[in-house]
Amino acid sequence: MPGNSIGKLFRVSTWGESHGKALGVLIDGCPSGIDLSENDLQEELNRRKPVGVSGTTRLEEDKAEILSGVFEGKTTGSPISIVVFNKNARSKDYANIKEIYRPGHADYTYEQKYAVRDYRGGGRASGRETVARVMAGAVAYKLLKKSKILIIGHTIQIGNVIADKFQAKEIENNELKCADKVATVKMLNLIETVKKENDSIGGIIEIVIKNVPTGLGEPVFDKLDADLSKAIMSIGGVKGISIGAGFDTALMKGSENNDEYVIRNGKVRTLSNNAGGILGGISSGEDIVLRIAVKAPASIGITQKSVNSRGKTVDFKIEGRHDVCIVPRVIPVVKSMAAIIIADHLLRQRAIQE
Amino acid sequence: MPGNSIGKLFRVSTWGESHGKALGVLIDGCPSGIDLSENDLQEELNRRKPVGVSGTTRLEEDKAEILSGVFEGKTTGSPISIVVFNKNARSKDYANIKEIYRPGHADYTYEQKYAVRDYRGGGRASGRETVARVMAGAVAYKLLKKSKILIIGHTIQIGNVIADKFQAKEIENNELKCADKVATVKMLNLIETVKKENDSIGGIIEIVIKNVPTGLGEPVFDKLDADLSKAIMSIGGVKGISIGAGFDTALMKGSENNDEYVIRNGKVRTLSNNAGGILGGISSGEDIVLRIAVKAPASIGITQKSVNSRGKTVDFKIEGRHDVCIVPRVIPVVKSMAAIIIADHLLRQRAIQE
Amino acid sequence: MPGNSIGKLFRVSTWGESHGKALGVLIDGCPSGIDLSENDLQEELNRRKPVGVSGTTRLEEDKAEILSGVFEGKTTGSPISIVVFNKNARSKDYANIKEIYRPGHADYTYEQKYAVRDYRGGGRASGRETVARVMAGAVAYKLLKKSKILIIGHTIQIGNVIADKFQAKEIENNELKCADKVATVKMLNLIETVKKENDSIGGIIEIVIKNVPTGLGEPVFDKLDADLSKAIMSIGGVKGISIGAGFDTALMKGSENNDEYVIRNGKVRTLSNNAGGILGGISSGEDIVLRIAVKAPASIGITQKSVNSRGKTVDFKIEGRHDVCIVPRVIPVVKSMAAIIIADHLLRQRAIQE
Amino acid sequence: MPGNSIGKLFRVSTWGESHGKALGVLIDGCPSGIDLSENDLQEELNRRKPVGVSGTTRLEEDKAEILSGVFEGKTTGSPISIVVFNKNARSKDYANIKEIYRPGHADYTYEQKYAVRDYRGGGRASGRETVARVMAGAVAYKLLKKSKILIIGHTIQIGNVIADKFQAKEIENNELKCADKVATVKMLNLIETVKKENDSIGGIIEIVIKNVPTGLGEPVFDKLDADLSKAIMSIGGVKGISIGAGFDTALMKGSENNDEYVIRNGKVRTLSNNAGGILGGISSGEDIVLRIAVKAPASIGITQKSVNSRGKTVDFKIEGRHDVCIVPRVIPVVKSMAAIIIADHLLRQRAIQE
Repeated sequence: MPGNSIGKLFRVSTWGESHGKALGVLIDGCPSGIDLSENDLQEELNRRKPVGVSGTTRLEEDKAEILSGVFEGKTTGSPISIVVFNKNARSKDYANIKEIYRPGHADYTYEQKYAVRDYRGGGRASGRETVARVMAGAVAYKLLKKSKILIIGHTIQIGNVIADKFQAKEIENNELKCADKVATVKMLNLIETVKKENDSIGGIIEIVIKNVPTGLGEPVFDKLDADLSKAIMSIGGVKGISIGAGFDTALMKGSENNDEYVIRNGKVRTLSNNAGGILGGISSGEDIVLRIAVKAPASIGITQKSVNSRGKTVDFKIEGRHDVCIVPRVIPVVKSMAAIIIADHLLRQRAIQE
Repeated sequence: MPGNSIGKLFRVSTWGESHGKALGVLIDGCPSGIDLSENDLQEELNRRKPVGVSGTTRLEEDKAEILSGVFEGKTTGSPISIVVFNKNARSKDYANIKEIYRPGHADYTYEQKYAVRDYRGGGRASGRETVARVMAGAVAYKLLKKSKILIIGHTIQIGNVIADKFQAKEIENNELKCADKVATVKMLNLIETVKKENDSIGGIIEIVIKNVPTGLGEPVFDKLDADLSKAIMSIGGVKGISIGAGFDTALMKGSENNDEYVIRNGKVRTLSNNAGGILGGISSGEDIVLRIAVKAPASIGITQKSVNSRGKTVDFKIEGRHDVCIVPRVIPVVKSMAAIIIADHLLRQRAIQE
Repeated sequence: MPGNSIGKLFRVSTWGESHGKALGVLIDGCPSGIDLSENDLQEELNRRKPVGVSGTTRLEEDKAEILSGVFEGKTTGSPISIVVFNKNARSKDYANIKEIYRPGHADYTYEQKYAVRDYRGGGRASGRETVARVMAGAVAYKLLKKSKILIIGHTIQIGNVIADKFQAKEIENNELKCADKVATVKMLNLIETVKKENDSIGGIIEIVIKNVPTGLGEPVFDKLDADLSKAIMSIGGVKGISIGAGFDTALMKGSENNDEYVIRNGKVRTLSNNAGGILGGISSGEDIVLRIAVKAPASIGITQKSVNSRGKTVDFKIEGRHDVCIVPRVIPVVKSMAAIIIADHLLRQRAIQE
Repeated sequence: MPGNSIGKLFRVSTWGESHGKALGVLIDGCPSGIDLSENDLQEELNRRKPVGVSGTTRLEEDKAEILSGVFEGKTTGSPISIVVFNKNARSKDYANIKEIYRPGHADYTYEQKYAVRDYRGGGRASGRETVARVMAGAVAYKLLKKSKILIIGHTIQIGNVIADKFQAKEIENNELKCADKVATVKMLNLIETVKKENDSIGGIIEIVIKNVPTGLGEPVFDKLDADLSKAIMSIGGVKGISIGAGFDTALMKGSENNDEYVIRNGKVRTLSNNAGGILGGISSGEDIVLRIAVKAPASIGITQKSVNSRGKTVDFKIEGRHDVCIVPRVIPVVKSMAAIIIADHLLRQRAIQE
C-alpha cells in the first residue's frame, strides 16, 4: 500500500505539495454525530503558524475548507475531505535551486525514488505538508475529548539549554511552547545568536498524554508505543523518539526501572512511571510520556558544498529567510500525530469489546 | 486490522504463546524461486539463544519446521508457514503468579485489554514471541542478500559502560555482541555484579544497514525511518530509537548537522552521515544507522511491591533464574525486524518502477 | 479499515456527497512519469453524462480539477487529488423527502448505520458518487495503455430485449452503448414505453478486457476475478456478476466447460474461453469476460408504500424526472472499476517479479 | 499486500498446499472470551467431507489442532493458529502430470505467475485449500451465534434439474444438501449418468443469512454485498454470484423490483425482498440472499487436448476417480466465507458506534 495514509480505523490520508494548487487531508472512519466546524480546524492551524524570532516570514494565511462528510454541523460517518488552497506560493523563487541537491533536504532522495522531482519548495517533502496533519489532528482531538484525553506538548531543550521547571499554564502563550520561563529566556538568546550566524538549531520536545483509558494498543506489532513512534518519526526533522525513561533505561537496573504497583483511589496505579504509560504495547492508565529529538532546519544562510543533478559539485547558500528553530512549530504536529494514533486505537479497542 | 502482522508486501504474521503448544510465523508475499531450508532458519534461531553470564538457563531447543510455501528447496510464492513446537514449557511453574501483576511486565495491561490472561510465562507478551520474528528475519535476509544488503548489530552500551572502539569481526563471537573487546570486559564485570544483587541492567544497541539502494521508503507516513522505528519499538523491552545523529541533533546547528554532498567514485555521496542514511524518509545510499535503548529485564530476584487481580497489595519476588541483561539477545531480533522492513520496502519500490 | 478506499498499491479513495460542496478522489500509488492532464479526466467524465431518452435532465457540468501529484504534465509519484465542485445542487428540492425512506434507496439503511442521514439526493449513496470512480478510472487507463490493455463495455440486455450481434465500432456512438444496432431500436422502444408509465427498467452489461498479461491476480483471496467482482458489485444498482460462462456453467459438463489448450502463434492459448480469462484467480492471457446485472432505477413516478423516520406509513411518489434506465451510464463506471483493479494487480505483480 | 488474507478486523490468513506437510489458518482479531474447542472445528470439517455418489474417494481424515490463542477453553484475543497435517498425500501420483497444463485447472496460470509450480495435486490451487476456510468459518460462526445470526446453504440446481421446493430440515441430511426431496432424486440420477460418462457437472447454490442486524457494511467500496461477493468468488470453481433478484433484475421494472416499506411488529420491514437484504451496501435487517454458480469439476476421465510446459500438444486424460459434482461440498465453504465476512463487519460496525 502506498505511504500517504496512516491509521487503520481512523484513517488519515494527506496530499498536496508546498507550491501546488492546494493541500489537504481525507479522513475516513470518523464516527458520525461528532460536532465539527471549520473553526475547529482553523484554531489548530493557527497554532502551527510561525511565531517570533524562531520562525520564517512566509505568510501562510491558511484557510481550512470542509468539502464533505459534515452535514448540519455534525460528521455523517462519510469521508471528511478538507482542503487548504495555497496562496502565497511563488514557485519561480525556486527556479535557481531546480538542479541542486540541497544538503539536509530530500531533493536527492526524491529524485532517486521517483526520477522526477517537484523542486518548488521541497514539493511534498516540505514542512508545509504538516498543515494536513494538523487538520487531521484537530478532528482526532474531537474524539479524544469525548474520552477526556488530553495531550500536552512542550519544548524541553533547544541546543544546550535545558528546561527543568514545568508550569503547564506557561506553555500556551510561551513563544517557544516551553513550560520553564527562565530557560525560555536563555533559549531565545541562543536562537538570536544562531540567527545572526545565519545558522539554525535543534531541540527536544516532550509529549504527555493524559487520561488514556487502559487497554489501548494491539500486540505484538501495533503496540501503542510502536504506532506512536512511527507516526511521530514520520514528521520531517524528527530524528529520535523514546518513551518513559527512554535512553536513560540503559543506565538503570531492573529494580530502579520497574514501576511498582499500588492501589490509589481504588485503582491499580504505579509509584513511578518509567514505562511511560505503556506496558507490552498496551496503555496502563498512567500518563504516556514521549521525548522527541528535532534537528536544526536544513535551510541555512551559510555556504555549503553540494552537487547538482548533472553531477557537478557546487557551492550552495540559501538566500532569503527561513526558520531558525522549528521545535515550537513541530509541537502541534507531534500532538496531532499522537491524537490520530490514540483516536485510531480507541476505535480499534471498541471493535473487540463486547 | 489486528496487530499481529507487519509489512505491506512482505507480510509477516506471528502467533503463539510462551507456554502454549507451539509458536510460529506466517510469511505472505515472499517472491518465488528463493532458496530456503530449515537450516537457514535454524542458524538464526541459534543466534537468539542465551549465551554466557547475561542469559537465562531455560533450555530452548527450538527446532524450526517449514510447513508450506517451499517446494524442492525453493519458495513457490505461496505463504510460508513455519512452526516451532514448545518443549521445555512447564506452565505449572507459573501457577503462583497467576493472580499477581508483575512490575515491569504486561500482566496488568493484558488483563485490562482482553479480560482474560494467559498467565503462563507472560503468554504472548513473553520474549519467546521473538522466536517467530527471528525466523521471519531469516527469510527476509535471503531477499536482502540478493541485493547485497548487510545488517550489522552490536552492543554499544551496558549500564554506564560505553563501547568506543569498533572492530566488526569481534562482534560475532563476542558474548555480548560488542565490537569493543576492552569495553566488553568491563560490561561483563558489571553484569556479574548486577547478577549477584539479583538485579538486572539495560543497554544500547547500534544497527548499521549497508548497501541499501537509494529510493527505498514511502513518503509521507511510511518513511523508511518511520517504518523501521515502529518495527523495532514493537520489540519488548525497547524504550527508544534514533537515527543518525539522533538525540544529539538537539545540540547541533544546521551547519554541523547537514551532510554536504560530494561526488565519490562517480556517485553522489555525503561527507558526513548525520542523517543516518535516510532523507525525507527515503534511503540515500549511505549506511542506515539506528540506536536502540533496551531496558533492564523486569524479572528480578528482589522483593517489589505489587498488586494482585483481587486488588490486594502483595510483596513479590521472582524465584528461579532469569536473564540479567537481554541486550545481546535483542540484537538478532532488532536485525530481523530491520531485515523485514527493508525487504518489504524493496518489494514496494519495485512495484512503482517501470 | 473504513470502506471508502479500494486497491492495494494503486489506491483509490473517494469522498463527497451528491449535494455537498464538492466530490473527489485521491489516488495514492500511481507511478511517477505518467502523462496526465485535466483533459484526460474530462473525456471520461463526459462519457458518464446522461444521453438521450434513458437519462435524467439534471445538468451536471462536471469539471475535473487536479490539485496535486502532477507537475509539468506528469505524475510525480505523490498522491493525486482530483476535485469536482457541485454546481447544480439544490438541496431544498429534497426537503420533502427528508423523513421518508424511499423504496429501493439506501435512506433507511444509512440512517440505521450512522444515526444521522444526509438526505440531500441520497448523500453519499447517490449515483453521483461514481463521478469520483470515473476520474480514478481515467488515471488507471493511463497505466493500462502502457501495457496495451483495452476495456470494452457494452449493453447486452435491457428488460427482455437481448443483443445478439456484436459490432465493436457501434458501441461508442450508440445511445445505449449496445453493439447490436437492431436490438438497440427495440431497447429504445421498450425504454420509451416504460418512461410513459413513469416506471424504470434494468439490464445486463458485458465487459471484455483484452491483452491482459498472464500472471495477474493474487491467490487465494485476492484472485483477479474476486477483486473484480468486489469492485463492480460495489457500484450502486449492480445486483450480480459472473465470469466467462458464468451461471450457464450450472448446465455444463466438465467436458463442455473445460477450455482445451493449444499452441497458437507460439503461445499457449485455449480453444474456448468458458473460464473468462482467469484460472485459479490468475489471468491466462485470454480475454477477461464479465457479465453484470443492473437493476431498474429506484426513483419512479408511481405511488409506492413507504414508511417515514417517525414510523408512520406513507404513500410516496417521486416528482420530477429521473433516469429510466441507467445501464448505459453504468458502463463507464464498470469499466473504471475494472481499470482500477487491473492497474492495481499490474503493480502487485511487479513487486514479486525479479 | 499479498493475497492470502481476508477480513479487516476479523482477519483470516490461510496457508498450505494440497500435498505439502500441512495446511492451516491463522485468525487474528477474534475477540477474547469466546468458547472454542477443536471439536467445534472438527464438526465443520466433517461437513466438508465428500459424501455419496458425487464425491471423490480420497480419504481425508482431517484433524484440526489449535496451536495458539485459546487458553482454558476460551479465546484470549491473541492470534488463533489452527493446523491440519496432511496424511493421505501421495505426491508421486502426480509425477505424470508434472509437465502438463490440465484443462480447467490453474497449472498454466500458476506457472506463468510464479515461474515455479508445485504440481502435486494442484498445490495451493487445490480444493483442499478450503479446509482452512472451513476452520476459519467455524470460529466466525461462534461470533455470529452470539448475535443469533444463522446461515443456510442449499443446492438449488444441478445441471438442468432445478429445486423448487424448500424444506429447511431436509438440507442437513440430504446427500446433495438440497431442500427439495423430489428434485434430489432427479439430481442424483443426473449425477449417476454423468459419472458413467466419466464426466462432471455444475450447479447453483443459494445462501440465506438470517437475523443480520441492520447497519452492517461499509460504503462505498466495502459494501456488505461487495465483500461477500469477493469472498465467495475467491472460492475455486465459483463462476458467478448475485444478490436478491440478481440477474432477474434485468427483466424487472422499478415498480416490480423496489421493495415497499411497511411496519411489522414495530419494525421497519419490506413487503418483498428483491434487494436481498442489503441496500446501499448496508444490511437492512431482511434475509441476505445470494446465488452462486459452481462449475463442473475440471478433472474428468475423458481425453482432452492439452499442452505441456515444453510447448508440445498432448492428449490428456485423468486416471483415478474424482468428484463428479462439487456443489454439495462447496456449500460449507460458501457458508464459511459468508460467516467470515459477516463476523468482520460485525466488528467493524462496533468500532464506529458509541
